[in-house]
Amino acid sequence: MQSTQIVLRQRPVGAPNAETFEVRTSELPDIQDGEVLLAIRYLSLDPYMRGRLSTAKSYAAPVEIGQVMVGATVGQVLATRHERLHEGDWVVSYSGWQTHAVEHGDMLRKLDPSIAPVTTALGVLGMPGMTAYWGLLEIGRPQPGETVVVAAATGPVGSAVGQIARIKGARAVGIAGGPEKCRLLVDTFGFDAAVDHRAPDFVDQLVAATPDGIDVNFENVGGSVFDAVQRRLNPGARVPLCGLVSHYNDTAMPQGPDRLPGFLSGLLTRSILVQGFIVDIAKVSRATNFWTDMPAWIRDGGVTYLEDIVSGIEQAPEAFSGLLQGANTGKLIVQVS
Amino acid sequence: MQSTQIVLRQRPVGAPNAETFEVRTSELPDIQDGEVLLAIRYLSLDPYMRGRLSTAKSYAAPVEIGQVMVGATVGQVLATRHERLHEGDWVVSYSGWQTHAVEHGDMLRKLDPSIAPVTTALGVLGMPGMTAYWGLLEIGRPQPGETVVVAAATGPVGSAVGQIARIKGARAVGIAGGPEKCRLLVDTFGFDAAVDHRAPDFVDQLVAATPDGIDVNFENVGGSVFDAVQRRLNPGARVPLCGLVSHYNDTAMPQGPDRLPGFLSGLLTRSILVQGFIVDIAKVSRATNFWTDMPAWIRDGGVTYLEDIVSGIEQAPEAFSGLLQGANTGKLIVQVS
Repeated sequence: MQSTQIVLRQRPVGAPNAETFEVRTSELPDIQDGEVLLAIRYLSLDPYMRGRLSTAKSYAAPVEIGQVMVGATVGQVLATRHERLHEGDWVVSYSGWQTHAVEHGDMLRKLDPSIAPVTTALGVLGMPGMTAYWGLLEIGRPQPGETVVVAAATGPVGSAVGQIARIKGARAVGIAGGPEKCRLLVDTFGFDAAVDHRAPDFVDQLVAATPDGIDVNFENVGGSVFDAVQRRLNPGARVPLCGLVSHYNDTAMPQGPDRLPGFLSGLLTRSILVQGFIVDIAKVSRATNFWTDMPAWIRDGGVTYLEDIVSGIEQAPEAFSGLLQGANTGKLIVQVS
Repeated sequence: MQSTQIVLRQRPVGAPNAETFEVRTSELPDIQDGEVLLAIRYLSLDPYMRGRLSTAKSYAAPVEIGQVMVGATVGQVLATRHERLHEGDWVVSYSGWQTHAVEHGDMLRKLDPSIAPVTTALGVLGMPGMTAYWGLLEIGRPQPGETVVVAAATGPVGSAVGQIARIKGARAVGIAGGPEKCRLLVDTFGFDAAVDHRAPDFVDQLVAATPDGIDVNFENVGGSVFDAVQRRLNPGARVPLCGLVSHYNDTAMPQGPDRLPGFLSGLLTRSILVQGFIVDIAKVSRATNFWTDMPAWIRDGGVTYLEDIVSGIEQAPEAFSGLLQGANTGKLIVQVS
């Protein structure tokens, strides 16, 4: 069986470009005992993937030149030598940017398509949903009446953060780029207020939307939006930090002035907590009620999700570049085949 | 009764100077029911006082121009109209930079000089000791075998941090200015290693002293020392942040490059926690074993302390300026009378 694959061709300096990836066709090995052959149906595109293109020290190893680009996938079993998995079964795997893959069956989570659409395993019922759930509830710990602010708020993490915040009785304020996304935040996701970071009066909008200051800043973007938000943090505020997408393409330290001392001083004088975190799927599954809470919230409409589906594996590089610039709306997924 | 007082004359721009304070003699009012007249014996000088000279937003109100400079004090009762307090009793008060004060007796904590020297109420058994205890144990949570780094390590907070870390089975590394203070860290306070931040090979010394990286960085200084330390933080490290003495005299944001994005990126990729905090004496007393642990550790020699005592209230301004520059060794106290 052949697999069409997107492999890393050259590490980008700054934003990924036409030289970063290339398409390759590889012959897959025959499956061995315990293995399955998968047809990849859906590939998740996520901001963290920018980190995998770089050799900078991080929490996971970089993708090597010539290696298939990594990523979470949903696939169907085409052939099986694993006792628990049958032909046609849906599974979640980490097969990366390719059309077919051979995986050991023990590494795969089987999906029940009757519970929720299988694509949710890449979004609200997958890593992004868990990131929102863990970061907000375990680190942010919003109390009823408190104000929670999240940027990239129409994305799969941000939209879940705002909706869970409201379920917990907090005021949810979302930040997004452009009036259309802002309308979506209020109308579709039920945020209490939306702030457009591309508007010239962004800071005034933020102040108006957070009259009592900010108690939880779920941070996934960084940059100038973060600057404005952190100035409004209340004493005792919590900042779960799970992404800095605005900096992922940075090639050097930005010019001054140096904002670090002022930032630290704000943490000190207002007793603020900042906690960087990477979601640990096993830990969330074990230590929280994610698997009962989240499906229930989806069923009762407390948590809505939005998907942005692009067709064809060869579209992945361009869609990924757009993701880093905020071009899409909702969870970005590539429909592979 | 007259009180000789040091009052704020002019807010300093940068370091406090000869124009910042002036001496005044004031006639104190007669004591009313419930009040006592105190002879202040000892005044504590602490880095946080720099913040009280400024109108910048902080966790406590600034000292007003013409107002007696604030500070923790140990005094003796000269005259009393409070039922629980008698002439000659030792008490802790927050009477500020002056020789005598009238205070309501209900606000005062009585000291038993047979338990420990009364000056310890300003240091290891007072706010600095509580800051070390709370920040290290509640936020830093060092585990046996982990490495704890603290700067300004010969100071009352830093020296307690290192010694408590060792009691908890962690490796204690202290940072101080100059070989003499470094010797003190190892010989007197029992740190596992000392690093001289004034040495040209400071970074190499730090690397050598922390072969397994750093798990807890008790941060009270900031600046270039902090930069070097944070580069060695391990995944999952904790940074209790209770001071930034190296920045207290800053008059503007330092020149670039802007180190904030890189700092945040480090927190993210290594899942690091930073928690600003101001010690809450009531909370520490209520929620921890401070009042049993610390006296026991002092008795059994696990925690040693060092005092730097200056004579005469009129010496307070100069001693305070020196404190901000690291000129003293040990807990800085003014013997008032």
